[in-house]
Amino acid sequence: MSGNTFGTLFTVTNFGESHGPAIGCVIDGCPPGMALSEADIQLDLDRRRPGTSRHVTQRNEPDAVEILSGVYEGYTTGTPIALLIRNQDQRSKDYGDILQTFRPGHADYTYWYKYGIRDPRGGGRSSARLTAPTVAAGAVAKKWLAEKFGTQFRACMTQLGELPIPFEDWAHVPDNPFFAPVADVAQYESYMDALRKAGDSCGARIRVQATGVPVGLGEPLFDKLDADIAYAMMGLNAVKGVEIGAGFASVAQRGTMHGDSLTPDGFASNHSGGVLGGISTGQDIEVSIAIKPTSSILSPRDSINIHGQPVEVSTKGRHDPCVGIRAAPIAEALLALVLMDHALRHRAQCSDVVLAVPPIPAAI
Amino acid sequence: MSGNTFGTLFTVTNFGESHGPAIGCVIDGCPPGMALSEADIQLDLDRRRPGTSRHVTQRNEPDAVEILSGVYEGYTTGTPIALLIRNQDQRSKDYGDILQTFRPGHADYTYWYKYGIRDPRGGGRSSARLTAPTVAAGAVAKKWLAEKFGTQFRACMTQLGELPIPFEDWAHVPDNPFFAPVADVAQYESYMDALRKAGDSCGARIRVQATGVPVGLGEPLFDKLDADIAYAMMGLNAVKGVEIGAGFASVAQRGTMHGDSLTPDGFASNHSGGVLGGISTGQDIEVSIAIKPTSSILSPRDSINIHGQPVEVSTKGRHDPCVGIRAAPIAEALLALVLMDHALRHRAQCSDVVLAVPPIPAAI
Amino acid sequence: MSGNTFGTLFTVTNFGESHGPAIGCVIDGCPPGMALSEADIQLDLDRRRPGTSRHVTQRNEPDAVEILSGVYEGYTTGTPIALLIRNQDQRSKDYGDILQTFRPGHADYTYWYKYGIRDPRGGGRSSARLTAPTVAAGAVAKKWLAEKFGTQFRACMTQLGELPIPFEDWAHVPDNPFFAPVADVAQYESYMDALRKAGDSCGARIRVQATGVPVGLGEPLFDKLDADIAYAMMGLNAVKGVEIGAGFASVAQRGTMHGDSLTPDGFASNHSGGVLGGISTGQDIEVSIAIKPTSSILSPRDSINIHGQPVEVSTKGRHDPCVGIRAAPIAEALLALVLMDHALRHRAQCSDVVLAVPPIPAAI
Amino acid sequence: MSGNTFGTLFTVTNFGESHGPAIGCVIDGCPPGMALSEADIQLDLDRRRPGTSRHVTQRNEPDAVEILSGVYEGYTTGTPIALLIRNQDQRSKDYGDILQTFRPGHADYTYWYKYGIRDPRGGGRSSARLTAPTVAAGAVAKKWLAEKFGTQFRACMTQLGELPIPFEDWAHVPDNPFFAPVADVAQYESYMDALRKAGDSCGARIRVQATGVPVGLGEPLFDKLDADIAYAMMGLNAVKGVEIGAGFASVAQRGTMHGDSLTPDGFASNHSGGVLGGISTGQDIEVSIAIKPTSSILSPRDSINIHGQPVEVSTKGRHDPCVGIRAAPIAEALLALVLMDHALRHRAQCSDVVLAVPPIPAAI
Repeated sequence: MSGNTFGTLFTVTNFGESHGPAIGCVIDGCPPGMALSEADIQLDLDRRRPGTSRHVTQRNEPDAVEILSGVYEGYTTGTPIALLIRNQDQRSKDYGDILQTFRPGHADYTYWYKYGIRDPRGGGRSSARLTAPTVAAGAVAKKWLAEKFGTQFRACMTQLGELPIPFEDWAHVPDNPFFAPVADVAQYESYMDALRKAGDSCGARIRVQATGVPVGLGEPLFDKLDADIAYAMMGLNAVKGVEIGAGFASVAQRGTMHGDSLTPDGFASNHSGGVLGGISTGQDIEVSIAIKPTSSILSPRDSINIHGQPVEVSTKGRHDPCVGIRAAPIAEALLALVLMDHALRHRAQCSDVVLAVPPIPAAI
Repeated sequence: MSGNTFGTLFTVTNFGESHGPAIGCVIDGCPPGMALSEADIQLDLDRRRPGTSRHVTQRNEPDAVEILSGVYEGYTTGTPIALLIRNQDQRSKDYGDILQTFRPGHADYTYWYKYGIRDPRGGGRSSARLTAPTVAAGAVAKKWLAEKFGTQFRACMTQLGELPIPFEDWAHVPDNPFFAPVADVAQYESYMDALRKAGDSCGARIRVQATGVPVGLGEPLFDKLDADIAYAMMGLNAVKGVEIGAGFASVAQRGTMHGDSLTPDGFASNHSGGVLGGISTGQDIEVSIAIKPTSSILSPRDSINIHGQPVEVSTKGRHDPCVGIRAAPIAEALLALVLMDHALRHRAQCSDVVLAVPPIPAAI
Repeated sequence: MSGNTFGTLFTVTNFGESHGPAIGCVIDGCPPGMALSEADIQLDLDRRRPGTSRHVTQRNEPDAVEILSGVYEGYTTGTPIALLIRNQDQRSKDYGDILQTFRPGHADYTYWYKYGIRDPRGGGRSSARLTAPTVAAGAVAKKWLAEKFGTQFRACMTQLGELPIPFEDWAHVPDNPFFAPVADVAQYESYMDALRKAGDSCGARIRVQATGVPVGLGEPLFDKLDADIAYAMMGLNAVKGVEIGAGFASVAQRGTMHGDSLTPDGFASNHSGGVLGGISTGQDIEVSIAIKPTSSILSPRDSINIHGQPVEVSTKGRHDPCVGIRAAPIAEALLALVLMDHALRHRAQCSDVVLAVPPIPAAI
Repeated sequence: MSGNTFGTLFTVTNFGESHGPAIGCVIDGCPPGMALSEADIQLDLDRRRPGTSRHVTQRNEPDAVEILSGVYEGYTTGTPIALLIRNQDQRSKDYGDILQTFRPGHADYTYWYKYGIRDPRGGGRSSARLTAPTVAAGAVAKKWLAEKFGTQFRACMTQLGELPIPFEDWAHVPDNPFFAPVADVAQYESYMDALRKAGDSCGARIRVQATGVPVGLGEPLFDKLDADIAYAMMGLNAVKGVEIGAGFASVAQRGTMHGDSLTPDGFASNHSGGVLGGISTGQDIEVSIAIKPTSSILSPRDSINIHGQPVEVSTKGRHDPCVGIRAAPIAEALLALVLMDHALRHRAQCSDVVLAVPPIPAAI
């Protein structure tokens, strides 16, 4: 209710602050009997980890995860899985100024008015560091979905600031620090270097995809699969827009074009993005998100302090000049959490007969 | 859990099918002591009602609402408010063919695989008719928010098919059947007439706005205000994209430009759309949504039946050639429901001190 | 959240007031494909109905239920089932006095301080009349559990005021107005007649049982099956105590005696009441509840009005002199709702392997 | 949903196993601005701690709690408070036999059939050790309620096995290992010594009380305050019965006697136990619970193994011969958690006017 738990049947309760002793989460609802170790989780945490290139924050965090519960002799037991990540590279400094000042584009102002108190160290609870437990929980969901249905998740950057990134091949994504699906990222490297030198930041657009999705996930009226995906993605720090399938382009499409034809071999196209009436079709889930430019920038900005007086703010310290760069593994995790939750909900709700019927193949 | 209840503290449980005996909802969590009558609700229902122009479905439904509970001598009592709308213009016909066939772009296929059974009459549960109870509940939320904070809601169409609609004035919106903020809608009338003649359909883009929003609404990590708005909007039938504030345009913005400066008189701009860190800033909430073209069209489409055999489908009957046309009041209602829910959540969570602090004025 | 919805996966949202236009509920989460008609529900409603003997309230209510949604051609579709019962025998009178006065043992005082407004007509929302929709929803749950697992529910009175009622046979229960498991109820008839003449009321003790319960229902830590049963029963109007299995008698038992031995043929006894570690064992669920004497009595009582001044109150009108008499079908319904909810939760959570394993037979 | 989270607005998500690396919980919904340190929590943990007398388990656990988040410079921030307690005195041994055998009265059988896998070490998740995080969370709730309303909690033993314990004075409770409200506990010491020598166990009855409770807490229909108290108490390991106020004795009471009269000075008696219509009256909350004898006993019992074959089981190791002895602080914590949750719910729901009205004093 206080907004720190994600999901309904597969729940992830997140805790921690950017510079507190630890961050982590408690996963509840993971089915019993799945092999699980720290290594299964660490892989995705490492993909999200800071300090892996000059284009992201230089904070040094190993993000080593410890499983505190819910696993016995290497297998999940159906009880809560608590994951703990100790913060290592906190910096103690005088936060007096920051405590009194609202940084433009930041949550300082809203936290202050909501709570009357806030932890200013590195953004406290509003820091993107809190996506690490989400990624860890997402790794558990991914494993279960892969074993059960063969579902796979991937994400890539499709635009960096004003530069569109053409899609060449998913295979390039792991080979560059931008999660870009292209062989040559030289222009993006230069772009980021110039931006950093200018003390400025930029946005990004990320495409997220799930393949091997079972048909029938999602609720009919309010907890539609696409609604829950939009909720998950828009809740990610700095996201300002979400599209499913054809997205905003569908406004200018005609009905004769948009509605995906069905053939005995499956769907003939995928403008729906894999969701019809809020329920998965078995096609690939296709999502696109817009990430705003980082608010923590060196360039001075006009603002006010808690007394309403004008001040000038420039944010020093270690920050990502484009938070979108590390967003790909987080967006994958969020999509996995949504699908995992709906997979469990579907088991509770559907008729026994339906479970046994093989769906028509979804070609596209 | 089964996706028919919206909200957490202010909940709306929706029931009914397009051609069943009745549709309606139960509102739980409405604070006691607010004056409420059917007339307060009917106004918005009439704005959404079918048959009000030649550009929408010709189904004849008065959509008269009856309050069954929760109101005593004209005032809410804090107990559930049940709202009932009897369906009037159901058409009995042979649905045999439709029951066996999946219409492209429709929920037929997904309902079939989820439930193994479906009510085919007019789309059954997946019909946009089920937005009527949402609009009714939204009217209750709007009234409470208006009385408590002065919050106001409005929405308009900003694009019809491939035609962008320039913003002239909110005052024009009630004067035309498109909810368009322009004085002259002749070109949109011709566009729709041609489309209908062609047996085709088109999409639309809708802008939704809330003014007079209190600061501090929204949860910090998962139930962010913008996340819940995205969930609400993407859950609306036919929506494929949601933007808050600058939306997808923020990708190409620089941090020096995007982050809204603060001055002693309030924010200097509103790229955030009224939400920072998932919490309302007190600025206007600005949302934009993409609505896909109606899937029910006269033009024949390729599809399959439940046995996987190829068939040709064309959808007769009464349908909106652009479901976006009637979406404005629905989108307002959804935004009101989200804000109402968070207003109650905020009362439960914030410190007593905070409640007494007047926020800095939000100029923009 | 506002306390009008029961359950988590199989939810029942209750609405209405004792003398308002209607009462009813929306059931969400009922699996698709089950045959369901009004007749299936009416049977249990009739068992709870007022006016069926001189020992209960003489209010004349047919309690005829209408299914508004969720059923298509006689089968559930997996969408919400809305049930409507119109109130028929409301009495309009001047409630001015009652509105100003707190009746001892009633919810008048607490509603007044919680809401600042209350519907005084027949107890408004706090009337036991609101158990009718619960009974209706319970009938749906009973039907599903019976078809799926062969689960059966029954309840009987085991004490009336200070008179213990010996257990003779379940077969006697439907044959007398007390739901007493004895052949001869003459002494209970006289007891009630004397009580009514005295303008007083008495309590009752009810035993509730479920047989044919699948093993494995219930959550391990907080939503234990027995915890949810206690919640359901203590939430029933006038209930002041709940026991599972040996109940309070277990305090004086030794461990060597209480813990039910297991044999290859099943459990050798049932002190647990069918629940171990919060999870069903497959034995009969055994519950006992204490119901306090009705608070609405003719005998004058000392009280105060809303201004804190002393007044004398005696409650005229139609009332049950022992609310426990009609409690049996309601308690059955509540137990059925708890088991139904946990049956669906179990489907979502357990491993696939477990579902296939036949449990050891539970002899007792 | 999987039963490891307690509460709705003030939630406690519990994790851990008896012999795993750690146990703990995440508290979400604690209002900001309350002073909080480990010392505030440790006090109650120490009252529940094992090894403090010869009458309880000799497991050596300091139960030292670490606050991982949600507190900044000594004050709560409104974000999740994660509490960690490392297990110290795990014993590694061969659990092969126990894994194959169902101990009578234990959760072994039900966990096996629910999950198909279980952590056998010290009862795993079903161990009463998991009440430690509940006690820790309860301490946070107690502190907030005490500061806000002056609410206080206390509990004492009122029966040990077949020995009733007369009530002398609350002052004696902290002075003996039984939480007994009497000066001289010699007979209870002898009773327990004899029981331990016999390799047997016994039950207990505990009285729990809250004073200084605000009027108006609780929901009207399903989440009644007494229903939630019953849920909380029955969910405590080994509890088989719950009473509110007069409890089972109310069955034999007449209405003229049971219903508490009101006077200008408050209520004249407290048969209701502080709850009317599911909502707190402002009187003391009075609860009584029955705790069954410990199932882990040295005396051999008949049982079966997972293959359904007969075996004889006797449970060695460190166990409480009467789990009721340490139940008092746990029951207090559970009552505090229920009241805390409803206090926050009440803030969200009641009218503003009501909040300002001083209730009539509740004399008893």
